[in-house]
Amino acid sequence: MLRPSSNPGAAAMAVTGLDAPKDVLVACETPVEVRGGIEGAPCRDLVAEEVPVAMVYNGVSHAVMMASPCDLEDFAFGFSLTEGILDRPEQLFHLYAVVSEQGISLEMHIAGDCFARLREQRRNMAGRTGCGLCGTESLAHAIRAIPRVPARPAPVDKAVQRALRNLPTYQPLQEKTGATHGAAWCDNQGRIQQAREDVGRHNALDKLIGARIRDHGARAFDDGFVLISSRASYEMVQKSATVGVSSLIAVSAATALAIREARKAGMTLIGFARPGRHVIYVRGDE
Amino acid sequence: MLRPSSNPGAAAMAVTGLDAPKDVLVACETPVEVRGGIEGAPCRDLVAEEVPVAMVYNGVSHAVMMASPCDLEDFAFGFSLTEGILDRPEQLFHLYAVVSEQGISLEMHIAGDCFARLREQRRNMAGRTGCGLCGTESLAHAIRAIPRVPARPAPVDKAVQRALRNLPTYQPLQEKTGATHGAAWCDNQGRIQQAREDVGRHNALDKLIGARIRDHGARAFDDGFVLISSRASYEMVQKSATVGVSSLIAVSAATALAIREARKAGMTLIGFARPGRHVIYVRGDE
Repeated sequence: MLRPSSNPGAAAMAVTGLDAPKDVLVACETPVEVRGGIEGAPCRDLVAEEVPVAMVYNGVSHAVMMASPCDLEDFAFGFSLTEGILDRPEQLFHLYAVVSEQGISLEMHIAGDCFARLREQRRNMAGRTGCGLCGTESLAHAIRAIPRVPARPAPVDKAVQRALRNLPTYQPLQEKTGATHGAAWCDNQGRIQQAREDVGRHNALDKLIGARIRDHGARAFDDGFVLISSRASYEMVQKSATVGVSSLIAVSAATALAIREARKAGMTLIGFARPGRHVIYVRGDE
Repeated sequence: MLRPSSNPGAAAMAVTGLDAPKDVLVACETPVEVRGGIEGAPCRDLVAEEVPVAMVYNGVSHAVMMASPCDLEDFAFGFSLTEGILDRPEQLFHLYAVVSEQGISLEMHIAGDCFARLREQRRNMAGRTGCGLCGTESLAHAIRAIPRVPARPAPVDKAVQRALRNLPTYQPLQEKTGATHGAAWCDNQGRIQQAREDVGRHNALDKLIGARIRDHGARAFDDGFVLISSRASYEMVQKSATVGVSSLIAVSAATALAIREARKAGMTLIGFARPGRHVIYVRGDE
């Protein structure tokens, strides 16, 4: 986000959450020209980095996402769980990051049965490539069956509004760059417990889910809800349901498909969460 | 976007731009509960549909995107050109859509040399799947070489601001649902010439590019600029450069990688285009 270059030495934030790529930046300064306000003034702006991040399982590169290079361990766990590659975090034995000019490889050593299942899926897709949806190359695999989520009370209005008010505090990268999405885990009173950021909204959610499960295991999503700064599209509902999130609150719109999938999953889905007002699309507890 | 159900019979807009899937809706009404304002009032909300859309070349399914099911012919042309599958629109001989319960297949018959090149690319990826980036499964293919765009003057401030003011008029689906992105082609005076919408920002851009090239061929991007309602990430710059767009204006942030790639391409890149103010990241004409 544009700001005067008060401290040009402090060029960028360090990567957190994984030791290896400390030399990779999540944001950097760039010279810009502002039109309007401080007319024509050349100055410097802090912009978000985006880096190709590959998910590599037992030596096989499975997917590449453009991502903010921070909280990569959370990202690896979260992506692997929300995409159904792992069922439990213990199935990821070892993880390290390889940084190259081309991007970051998250090299994972996963349990044999998980890898066998992944390999089987991939064999069915042999000679094809995917796009837009993780590992999806044809319509037959586009929409995964969505599981039922545990029945839990829908968040009360006050909690939704409280979490919403506090979300910006948990988005330091967004505050600095204006280019990133946030995902937060909130307790039933709407207090934010944990949050993650990324240039991609799916990645922010994956990182949050990875962080929660690494820290809290099977009880990660017992009492509370997920708040996302973005829209609730199909994939956001799908990823949340896969790990048992019972309530998803989006700052922006929900799509029709997201609403239908939330109904199938028994998930509470709330959208257009703005100060003083939000829209309940699905109540999972009814 | 939420509105009182004044006309519940008019449930949804028809699909435009391709004949086949007239029964597929770009938006539908759904019952909702609003908290705040008209407290607790159950009413109906118009929400955007998102549908899996497969790009199928000479019988081979290449990629699936979640998309708004409208302007599908533009989408097919645009995606094929911005992803470098086709070099010219004439290389797409025949296109039809197959609608199934799983989604929409855009079945394309393309020129032999284009298909041979695609098949060669796909052979190199055999047994792998992609994600996040179109047809990308490993870091080696994540960042494509970006071409130089034709040198053209950067848009003047007045034109940028004028286009920005008028963009909402060209986003009827966004106005109704609040869930979609827009991409517009604007002349050097900032008058919007053509616009497209989609739940996905890449798709909106692909549809616009497809529409322009279908209507104007090699002169599609001669005098003017592209305005997008979203952020300018790497892929938005890459897609624009591939078809020779010289200036890209984004309502929201630009990422550091997008800025670097725009510099390589000689493309003007402007971000945070808000009323009365915008930020010039790269001037292509300097």
